[in-house]
Formats: sequence, C-alpha cells, structure tokens
Amino acid sequence: MTATLLTVGDELLIGQVINTNAAWLGERLTAIGLHVNRVITVGDEDAEIHAGLQRGLADSEVLICTGGLGPTHDDVTKRAVAQALGRPLARRAELVDHLAERYRQRGRELPEAAYVMADVPRGFEALENPVGAAPGLWFRGAVPGVPGLRAIVIVPGVPFEMRAIMEASVLPRLVELQGESAIVQKTILTVGHGESDLAARLGDLDEWLGDGLRLAFLPNYGTVRLRITALGDDRSEAGSRLATFENFVRDRLGDAVFGEGDRSLEEVVGEMLRQRGLRLATAESCTGGRVADAITNVAGASGYYSGGVVVYGNPSKIDLLGVSRGALQEEGAVSEAVARQMAAGVREALKTDIGLSTTGIAGPSGGTPDKPVGTIWLGYADEGGTHAVRLHLTPDRTLNKRLSVTAALNLIRRQILRRDRQPGNHVRAPLAPENES
Amino acid sequence: MTATLLTVGDELLIGQVINTNAAWLGERLTAIGLHVNRVITVGDEDAEIHAGLQRGLADSEVLICTGGLGPTHDDVTKRAVAQALGRPLARRAELVDHLAERYRQRGRELPEAAYVMADVPRGFEALENPVGAAPGLWFRGAVPGVPGLRAIVIVPGVPFEMRAIMEASVLPRLVELQGESAIVQKTILTVGHGESDLAARLGDLDEWLGDGLRLAFLPNYGTVRLRITALGDDRSEAGSRLATFENFVRDRLGDAVFGEGDRSLEEVVGEMLRQRGLRLATAESCTGGRVADAITNVAGASGYYSGGVVVYGNPSKIDLLGVSRGALQEEGAVSEAVARQMAAGVREALKTDIGLSTTGIAGPSGGTPDKPVGTIWLGYADEGGTHAVRLHLTPDRTLNKRLSVTAALNLIRRQILRRDRQPGNHVRAPLAPENES
Repeated sequence: MTATLLTVGDELLIGQVINTNAAWLGERLTAIGLHVNRVITVGDEDAEIHAGLQRGLADSEVLICTGGLGPTHDDVTKRAVAQALGRPLARRAELVDHLAERYRQRGRELPEAAYVMADVPRGFEALENPVGAAPGLWFRGAVPGVPGLRAIVIVPGVPFEMRAIMEASVLPRLVELQGESAIVQKTILTVGHGESDLAARLGDLDEWLGDGLRLAFLPNYGTVRLRITALGDDRSEAGSRLATFENFVRDRLGDAVFGEGDRSLEEVVGEMLRQRGLRLATAESCTGGRVADAITNVAGASGYYSGGVVVYGNPSKIDLLGVSRGALQEEGAVSEAVARQMAAGVREALKTDIGLSTTGIAGPSGGTPDKPVGTIWLGYADEGGTHAVRLHLTPDRTLNKRLSVTAALNLIRRQILRRDRQPGNHVRAPLAPENES
Repeated sequence: MTATLLTVGDELLIGQVINTNAAWLGERLTAIGLHVNRVITVGDEDAEIHAGLQRGLADSEVLICTGGLGPTHDDVTKRAVAQALGRPLARRAELVDHLAERYRQRGRELPEAAYVMADVPRGFEALENPVGAAPGLWFRGAVPGVPGLRAIVIVPGVPFEMRAIMEASVLPRLVELQGESAIVQKTILTVGHGESDLAARLGDLDEWLGDGLRLAFLPNYGTVRLRITALGDDRSEAGSRLATFENFVRDRLGDAVFGEGDRSLEEVVGEMLRQRGLRLATAESCTGGRVADAITNVAGASGYYSGGVVVYGNPSKIDLLGVSRGALQEEGAVSEAVARQMAAGVREALKTDIGLSTTGIAGPSGGTPDKPVGTIWLGYADEGGTHAVRLHLTPDRTLNKRLSVTAALNLIRRQILRRDRQPGNHVRAPLAPENES
C-alpha cells in the first residue's frame, strides 16, 4: 500500500519547528510495509490542505494528516478534510463527556473553545489519545470518485501525542488493512559494532526476511538499534516468528546486544551497577564531563554513581588522582599508563568499586604523528586491577566526545560481564539509593 | 513572493534523515520576506519530481529544489527539472575543469561518473559550491505556460553545502528579485531573558519593522537569538538601516546581549576568561558534568579551564570540596550555603581564579514542599568572595540540566562583567594555552 503524508502547520513552513513527525512516520510506516510516496507540508489554510488531500487521494491508498486538531482558530485540518470529503462534522456526546472528565481531573471546566475537539466527520472513528485531549481520527473505506482509497488518518501534530495514537491505534489498523491481522515489533540494542559489521555477523538474511519479517538498522553514535517487525495472521503467529528470529539475532551477535526497547546504554549500565551493588566514579580528560553527564541523565543515578572529576590539565591529574609525574612525562597524558592511573586514582579518591577514565586528543588540533587527533585511551579499575583500551576515532571534536562516551559505557558493561563470569561474584541485592536525585 | 520547496530524497520518505533543510530554508526565506506556501518531499523518481514541480509552478513565483545533484544513479533532480521545463542538459567545459581541479587537489582523477555534475539545463546559471563538488543552479525568468514564475533554484541536499550556496549566491539573488538590491543580516545573541521579556524591553517596534527591516526571535534553552534582516537599494543603505536598529536593540537589552553571529555562550565566556587570564574550575551536582561538557566542547578550553568535579553524594562534597557537615545537615545539599562552599572549595582544590558550582533537584523525583523539583542553586567564587543565585525551573530532568548550564555560564559572564567595572581589574594579556586539547 502507498501512503501520502500531509503535515499541517504554519510553524513548519517558517522553520520554527523541524518536521520530525514526517521522519518518524516514514520510518514506522516503512517498517510495516507501506510505501510513503510523498510528504506534503502546508500551512493552516483550508485551500492548501484541500489541495494536498486531492494530491494524496489521486494515487495513494492511505492518507495520513498530522496537525491542526486542537481547539484554537488555526486548527483547521479536521474541518478542511470534512469539507473535502463531503462528510460533515458532528459533535459526539461521549467525546464531550470524555473531554469534560479530562478537564475536571485537572480541576478545570471544559472551556467553550474545546468543544470542537469532540467534532468528528461522518463515518470517522475517534481514536483515544492516551496522552492528550484531541482524539485521533480514522476512516476506512473509499469515497466517491476515489476508488483506490483504503484509509484516512488524522492525528495531532504534537509529536508525543501523534506517536502514542499511531502506536496504539493506527499502526495495528494499517497492518490489518494489508490483510495481516497482527504486527509485533521489537528493538534489539547493540553497541561496539558498526552496521556493516553487524550485517556480516548476521550473514545472509534472505531466507529470513520477506513479507512476514523485516529488519531495520538504526545507528546512533556507536550504538545500532535493530528494529525487528514481524507480521502474521494473528498475534501468536507474528510473535513466534519474531521470537525465532530474535533468538537467531541474539545468538549471532552475542555480547554486542546490550538490551532491548527504548532503553539507553547509560540506563542499562546503571541497572547493571545497581543490581550488583557496585558504585562507579569517573575521571575524564578528553570527554570533559560528557560521560558523567550521560550517566546522570538517568533518574536515580545517585544509587550507583558517586561522582567524578574532569581533569583537563596535568596538575589536576597529579593532585586529584595521584597520576605519577613519571608516567605523564615519559608516556604523555594520552597513554595507556595514564588512563590506568586515572581510573585507579578516581576509584580511590571517591572510594568506589569501579573507576573509569578517558584521556585523548579530541581535536581539532593537538595531534602528533604518533598520536593523531582521535586517539583516545579509556581506563577501567576495580578490585582486580586495571584495564585499558585504545580508540582510533575521527578528526571531529564533538563526534569524538560522543563516540568516546558510548565506548566508555560499553567498557564498564563488558568488564561487569567479565566479573560476572568469575567465581564468587554474584549479583548482590541492590543498595538503597542515596537521598539525592 | 511565494515559494514552494521541493525536497528530494528517498532517505527523507523512509525516515532515515530528518528534513532539517526545509526548516532552515523556511526560516531564511521568511526572513528575507518570501512566503513559503508548501514543502513537497518526494523520492528519487522522475515522475514524482515532475508532479511536485508542476504543483509549485502552478502558483509560486519561486521554486527551490534540494537534493539529487550528486554523481550517483539516484541523483535525478536536475534531469527531471530539465525535462519538465523542456530545457535540455548541456555539459559545461569550465565546470568540468573546475571539478577536475577539485579532484586533483585531493590527489584523485575526475571519475567518469562525476562528469554529470558539470551538466546544466539550458538557460540556467551554475552557482559555485564553496564546500562541495556539485554546483547549485539558478534560473531567472518565466517558462512557457508559467507566466508567474520568477526563479528556479536547485541546490544539493547535503545541509552544509545547501546552506553555503544559499547564503553566498541564492539569498542575495532572491532579494534582488524582490526589487531590493541588497540584504544584510546580523544575529544578536541574548541570554537570561525569555522572548516575551525581550519583546517588552524592546517596546513597540511598529515604527522600526516593515518592508526594510525584519526581526526574528529564535529561542534555545535559555538563550534567544535575535536575527535582524535589513533590506535596501544598496549594501550601504541596508547596512546603515541595520546598524541603526542594532544600536537601538543593544541599548534596550544591555547586558542581556552576550555576542553576535554563530557563537555559543560557552565560546564567549571562554574568550572572556582567556582575555583576562582567568582560570575556571567547576563543581557540579545536579548538572552532573554537563557544565564541564559544554565548556570543553570549545576547542582550546584548556587555555582557561582547569577541570572540575562531579559530586553526586554528600561524602564527595565533604571530601573533595571541603563542604561542611553542618551546612549539609542544617541547610541541605540544595542550599545557598552549600552552593557557595562548593564554588569556593573547587576554586581552592584546583587552584583557579574562579569556582562555579551547581546543586539542585533535577527531578523527576526528590522534591519537597520547600524545595520542589526544579530548585537549583548556582554558586560562584573568586578572590572577592562568593555569590549564589537560585533558579526555579521545570519538572523535567534533562531540561533542567540544559537550562542550568546556560544559567551557570551566564553567572560567570555577569560576574566577570562586574569584576571589569571594579577599579584595578584590567583585562590582562591572555595566558598561553596549556599543551592539551
């Protein structure tokens, strides 16, 4: 099935808002097998919305409109669609009640202007909005003169509302419309390997992938998400198809898989630390606080993260971390010896189980033939000793910082997995988090 | 003049790439007075490009196409435009030479496939691409059956190439096309005040703004960029119009203005420190390393930044920074007293001129009636003593971190300005940067 997206909003045309909805919808619709043939973005004007609709109706089976469902005067999408299709709006009593209840829960009365959100074009189904006021709208079937049409969807433009309604109500209906009764999706999270490396490990997937199973690679600064989509006659068939392929993927990729779903690497590493009752400290040079920032983006990080230091000059490496002058002079600040000493030093200074360090040449300048820009050492220390890894990254400073953070978190993860395999290291009960957020 | 944008690329439809070009173009075209009536995004297919062109030609004076100008088989935009307009492609010898020279400079021979980048539709002008291979294309005038058309533009889809060609060649031509001979733009950077506050300080701008002068507010996590666009018969008229308004703006906004152009607050603060020979250290609790990360995103930060600590628990606040147990017990970790002690403590520990601290409740949990989520204290210490400010931010953890970083950098900036006004504090010669990047 082909789909046209009609994204509505003046804010998109004047560049106040970037159209992330179009990309999200494109990715999700492609994953369930639809072909998005175009995106048309227009302002909050009846005539433009009408023209965009006509263009989509001319050759698409599915039309998806975003934006313009709210209560203000510039929310004109629903009215324009109703007019274009000759399906007048009618106020639905049960939607008025639902809206009134929603406002009541927030201690407010339903304002006069909000009643329009209960108006639905004839023949349309209202789709529950789990995170906002305006319902989504779904129409299935053809309209006069447009025999190819299978469905029309109208969803709010606020990204998290759009996504929630699409996930809960629209994507399942579109799957069903394609003659499949069920769709299941799962995202497998990997780190430490690029797309082509992962593809090589997975080998030839022709026998796996096809109408019933799809796989998308979604790379992001050193991690790659693998989105698996399985279709089937019912949920059980789709689910078992997905499970079989997931087992194959996990088997092939081994430790490269760090989790699933919407989790971040820092969440997963934090959870690993918490479960084992391990506390972490960081000593950063080239990443300049970005590792600490990532770790503390996770709510409750104080349960396993004691803190860290950003040591940009040699004096603070010596004073705060006890790095030896000898190592700094003989090996240089960007060296295996200094990375190990920094990790051990911060572990001692903050009295934690694990110390993690970064030291490198982030760029754009400062490289030498021996140690070009992008040379980064990561250090790790625990009660068993120290460990270090060398990265060869890029000429770009910010990119190097981002990639180093991912690699540093992955180093902690891999060392914890190694600890787990050693006799006597059991997963302990979690510590109570410290009383600070 | 109205403009239609035609953004071409399969990667946009399947959601692999977010269409940032459309937002950038929308903002810039609006700034010079064009009305963008729609954005049409299609894949790398002749028929779709053709249909999009026809839609734009039907009611727009200007048509801007992005993407599909490169040397690979899916770069079809130029050919499709040439066919749609009946203007055949011809290879330009001078462009072949230019491309060959470009490849030669990189030690490579011009590959056969790259010759197509020298093909130009009849009547089109090739626009120099200062940062890439494929030239932009400009056509001025009408085509048969489309009397309203004023210009057609084709630029590459790679964002920095598109931007470079637009800035250097296309925007000036579009300004001229509107009957203005010159356009000048300037961006004034402000911090610490929201859009509405800035608007109130500027007062009624009706007498200023109009055809010859435009102002856009571009907010971003505590900073607001004010983009001023002045038009005129010649550069001197436009420039003097801009200068007069800029003086007015700077006069009204005073210290809220921290710079101009594309600079970041961390760059400006870094430059202020460097010029005065001042060194900085940071002690972060709720921002968890994000202040350090921002500061060290600037190349050469080691010239004025010695490092910092991330102190997430009370023990490390005491051990590393010498914060007193009494203050922690009586006032709590999120308090004016602790913020001041942290700033003074890190200044002493890292032997710097200035210490900066953050302590607060980033959320989502951890708030109390007294200190709700979003309560953040910032501390500042220098040789004259300590200073602290309290922020009341949001329930959102990541947003609170971002806003706190901006506020912390602004605190340093304002304290340096205060120092400058004290007798005896002169701007000293800059220190030599430390030998680390």
